[in-house]
This record gives sequence, C-alpha cells and structure tokens, in this order.
Amino acid sequence: MPGEHRPLVGCTLGDPAGIGPDVLLRAACEDTGADLLLLGDPDHLRSRLRALAATEGLLAAPLSDLSTVTDPTQARKHQRNGQRGPWVLPCTTVVPGLQLGTPRNEDARAAIESIQAGADLALSGGIDALVTAPVNKHQIAALETRFMGHTEYLAAHAGVRHPIMLLAGPTPHIALLTTHLPLATALTLVRHELVATVLQRLHRQWSQRFGRAPVIGVAAFNPHAGEGGRLGTEESRELSPAIQAAREAGVDAQGPYPADSIFLRRGLDVVLALYHDQGTIMAKRAPWPTINLTLGLPYVRTSPDHGTAYDLAGTGKADHGPMAAAIRLAAELCAVRGGGVPPSAAPTGVSG
Amino acid sequence: MPGEHRPLVGCTLGDPAGIGPDVLLRAACEDTGADLLLLGDPDHLRSRLRALAATEGLLAAPLSDLSTVTDPTQARKHQRNGQRGPWVLPCTTVVPGLQLGTPRNEDARAAIESIQAGADLALSGGIDALVTAPVNKHQIAALETRFMGHTEYLAAHAGVRHPIMLLAGPTPHIALLTTHLPLATALTLVRHELVATVLQRLHRQWSQRFGRAPVIGVAAFNPHAGEGGRLGTEESRELSPAIQAAREAGVDAQGPYPADSIFLRRGLDVVLALYHDQGTIMAKRAPWPTINLTLGLPYVRTSPDHGTAYDLAGTGKADHGPMAAAIRLAAELCAVRGGGVPPSAAPTGVSG
Repeated sequence: MPGEHRPLVGCTLGDPAGIGPDVLLRAACEDTGADLLLLGDPDHLRSRLRALAATEGLLAAPLSDLSTVTDPTQARKHQRNGQRGPWVLPCTTVVPGLQLGTPRNEDARAAIESIQAGADLALSGGIDALVTAPVNKHQIAALETRFMGHTEYLAAHAGVRHPIMLLAGPTPHIALLTTHLPLATALTLVRHELVATVLQRLHRQWSQRFGRAPVIGVAAFNPHAGEGGRLGTEESRELSPAIQAAREAGVDAQGPYPADSIFLRRGLDVVLALYHDQGTIMAKRAPWPTINLTLGLPYVRTSPDHGTAYDLAGTGKADHGPMAAAIRLAAELCAVRGGGVPPSAAPTGVSG
Repeated sequence: MPGEHRPLVGCTLGDPAGIGPDVLLRAACEDTGADLLLLGDPDHLRSRLRALAATEGLLAAPLSDLSTVTDPTQARKHQRNGQRGPWVLPCTTVVPGLQLGTPRNEDARAAIESIQAGADLALSGGIDALVTAPVNKHQIAALETRFMGHTEYLAAHAGVRHPIMLLAGPTPHIALLTTHLPLATALTLVRHELVATVLQRLHRQWSQRFGRAPVIGVAAFNPHAGEGGRLGTEESRELSPAIQAAREAGVDAQGPYPADSIFLRRGLDVVLALYHDQGTIMAKRAPWPTINLTLGLPYVRTSPDHGTAYDLAGTGKADHGPMAAAIRLAAELCAVRGGGVPPSAAPTGVSG
C-alpha cells in the first residue's frame, strides 16, 4: 500500500543448529505487518532457504531469494521503494560442518554475535523492534559466563535494571515477579515491599509499551488464595498490603485471586505471577502459544516462547506460528511506541 | 439394548442453591452410558425440572418426569425392565424459601445428607459409582467442622487413609502429592521418602481403577527442573532418589521434568504434581474441562471440577458438559472395576 509505514523488525537467528532460521524464513512468507531484517550469516540462511524450497516450495513467491544489505538504512531505502524484504544483514559466520539438530559449542559465537547486532541496532533506532530466535543458553554461558537469557542480556546492554518478562497471548497476559531463581529463594521474595514496587513498575512499563494503563490481577500464594487464612497467611500479610499500596499510588491492582483460576477472570489485562513456574504453567498450558515480551527496554522486543527444538530442526515439522505471532505483536507495538501513557492513566506518585 | 449392563450411578445434588441440580438434570438427558439415581429432595428436583422445561424444553423426551424409588434395588429392577432413569431417591428435604444463587446456612444439611446417602450406597454396592455435585465448603464446615471437602470426607467414611486426588482429562492426568495445605507447608513435604511412597501408592491405586499400570511423570520443583543444580537442588536431592526407589519397586516413574512443559510430553499417563496449585493450574488452564477422580476408595467416585457458580444458578447459562463428562468417566470405570492389575503390571514389592 503506498504511503503505508511498515516497521523494520530485526530478527536474531538463534542457534543455527536449531529451528530458529527455518521458522524465521517461513514466518517471513506470511504477512506479519513488518519487513524483516535477518541478522546472521547469509550463506547459512540461503542454504536453509534452498532446503526449505526443496521440501516446502518456499522459492515460490513470496520468498524467492535473500538479498543482503550493508546497514539498516539500506533496508529502509528498499522499504521506501516499495520492497518488502526480508533482507539479511551479515553480522556473523557459521563455522562450516554444521549438522542441523546437533548443538556445537562453536555455534555460541554466531548466536551471540547476532544478539549483539540486534541489541545495538534496536538501541540506536536502526531497527524498529527486535525479535529473537531461541538459543542454547548453556552453550552461550560457556562463552559469556554472565549470560542468563535474552531478557537479562538485553536489559544489561540497555542499562535497564528491572525489566519485566511478560508472557503475552489473549488476555490476560502473564508477568513474572521473579524469573530464574530456585523456588525456595523466589518464595522468600514474595514480600509486600517488592510486590508493591513491581506492581508500580509493571503499571509504568506496560503503559509505556501499550499506550494505556493496565488492570493487573495478582495471583495468590496459597491454594484457594489461603481460604481466609485457613490455608496460609501470605495473602493477608504480604499481598493485600502490597495491592493496597499500589492502588494508593494509582495502579489498578486487584486480588489476590486463586492462581488456578485467575486467568479465567474477565477484565484483567495482566496477571502478576509470584514465581516462575506459577506463571509459565499458566502460559504454556494455555490453548494458544504465548509470546515473550520484555517490558522496560527502550525498544520493542518479543520472541516465541519455545526453545531450539533440536529434534525438529530440518524435519519440516517445526511450527512457525509462534514466531509469526511474535513478529506480528512486535509490529503492532511499534505503532504504539512513543504513544506513552494518557495523562489520566499516569497519576503522579507512580514510580518503581 | 437388551442384555446391556448399564451402571447405576448415584449423584449427590450439591448445594441446592447452586448449579448442581440443573447440570445434573441436563446431563441426565445425554447418553452418558449410565442410569442415574439422584440423591436429594424430589420436590426441589421437580421444581427445577419444571423451570428448565419452561426455558429449555427438558420436559420433551428424554426427560419427561422424575419418578422416585424407595431404595436402589427398585432402580435396578427398573433397569432390568429396560427403563433408563433418572430416578430420585429421597434422602433429604430442602428448607422452603430457597432462592437460586443465594447461599443459605440451612442448605448445608441437605448437601451433607445427600453426600452421606451417596457414601453409604457406594460402600454397600447399592450404586455402582458416585458422582458428586459442587457444595459450599464453608457452609458445610459450619455444620461439620471436620469437613475439608468431598475427597477427605469420603475417604474417612470408607476408612481410607491415603486417597489421591486425580484431575482427569485427556492424558496425562494430574495427581497431587498433597492437597489443601499452605504452600510453605506443602513444600516442606517434598521429601524423597514421601514422594517414593506416593509414587507406589499412585501406581497401585491407578492400576486398581484403570486395570493397567500407569506411566508416571514427576513434575520438577524448581524452574527448568533446576537446570542441573543452577536453579535449585531439590531435583537431585529429593526427586531423583524417590523416582529411583519407586522404579526399583516396579513403578514406571520418570522425570523430574520441568513443570511448565511436562503436560506436553507424550507417553505419560499421569503427572505427579508436587503441590496443589502446580497441579490445579495445569488442570484448569487445559483446553478441556478436567474431572476430579478420587483414587484409593473402594468404589468409583468422580465430580466435575467446578464450584457452585451461584452467579449462574437458574440463568440457563451453566455448562453441563463437565458434569456429563464426570458421569461418563464414572460409567467407563465401572466396566474396569474389579478388573484389578494384570499380573505382569503388579510386581511384588509394590506397596504404599
């Protein structure tokens, strides 16, 4: 459509031995509302495109070949000329000898160089949003000992201390109070001060990203939300005071509601889950794939909520639907980006 | 079908002010493979039948009226004569003045008398299986202070010390290591001795009920099953030794697997969840309704996994699908009942 502004979404390739490159190439054949800039090794991507073409006919339109660009401004120029991508920005080299489905330590370099390029481009505005493909954390951690995952890496790179991991799908989305901690440690952090702080942070970060203030439901700690104290007191001791404090700061926080039915409640935009598995079970058991969205970054970042799936790499059986959904959400949020919070939804006193 | 043996399934009515009577009457119009003996107040049930008939046409076949029986042998005689029920066994009286959707303390008596009748009949063999409709636990607890729920009540009535709550749906089903405890207390019970004992108990009780031995997956305690110790040690310290001990006793136990994806694994019959919400989030977030099945009782007992839903009582909007599914599962398990474990699946040394 002439005059239509389509965001330029940068995509990291993930582990080249996993399903990342394939689901990206397949997602690039769908209309996601974005033009893609693939951040990786052009030779590896072309080899995957030929393989997919042989089995799935991807060389037919819309994806006939992959052209490279030397920088994102070149891609934006192509966009203005009515081209649709995807384009490849060479930023790493896959070591020869790769076998799909077989992880190699030497592929950590390619994965991390792709992420580094994406983080730099997203921060500088070279791309409008960043979508990441799955990596092998253990492999990368051997190279970059502090690598805990994309969320932590991108936050550190952007100088953001408190990102929030959001698992997005049909509402309510799921936000995590804490992420990768032993359960016993995570539960000691369910204290009213932290919960109140994170509720305010979630309110602010969500509002910035979605352009409106959220209604937040807080998941309970104990079965049946403690049944009035018969099944535990964390609800009255920690959660209710935190919710009250957040409400006084202008946050529309509600609950605590039983964790095994809070996701069925109407009217909630997002559930605050109190520990990793409480939220990820809700998300992964949902009848739809959820998308990982990092709140708090100065740019839009999403990813599909699945791993490298080595057993599916190269089989043609990997579902590219979650990757396409992650790109689609990123494209939608680019339209909101910079919209900020309507004045009525950003009361003074909200911080975090 | 002449000669066909249809089980006689007793159904408690639950809170008469909730959706129980309505979903039972509607489920009785479906072919669930069972003939129903409704345990309650015939006047109340007929009044609900008339109301449903006025709005939903239930007085048309197959449910034209409700006849009473004085004992279950009379119902079985009707069955032999080719009749299909449902029949009502009067066993309680609803106090006049009931308004649907408005809980009253005086209805606890009717709810508990229905359960008592059902428990007696199931234990004596008067009925082939028991299906329970939702009650208001708080109301009943005011009358029977020890009432924690159907599972605990029926187990105590039958002299069973260690029933297992199973949330059944498409496999894998979900079994709970512990049920209604504060989370902090429940987590202190995740010790290898108890987990090994419950694995053996689950193996035995499942085998008795389903007629074959189960493949059991154990859910992990920490995120990502502890990631090799980086995110907690309960997997190596408690769960793996328990699984090993159970395997040595002939139980096909596997894991621990990450709790946020264990339900996606193929080949598992049942997941052992380590605490209430871990299992109930898996069950209630599933894309299908789950059925509560009590293992360990000397008879088949199921119930739909929902509550009294006062807000839906009398509106015609309550979904009777879960109740019909609970009756259907009970009917199917009646066919297995008494089948026991095939010798090859019941190795010596299995106890619990």
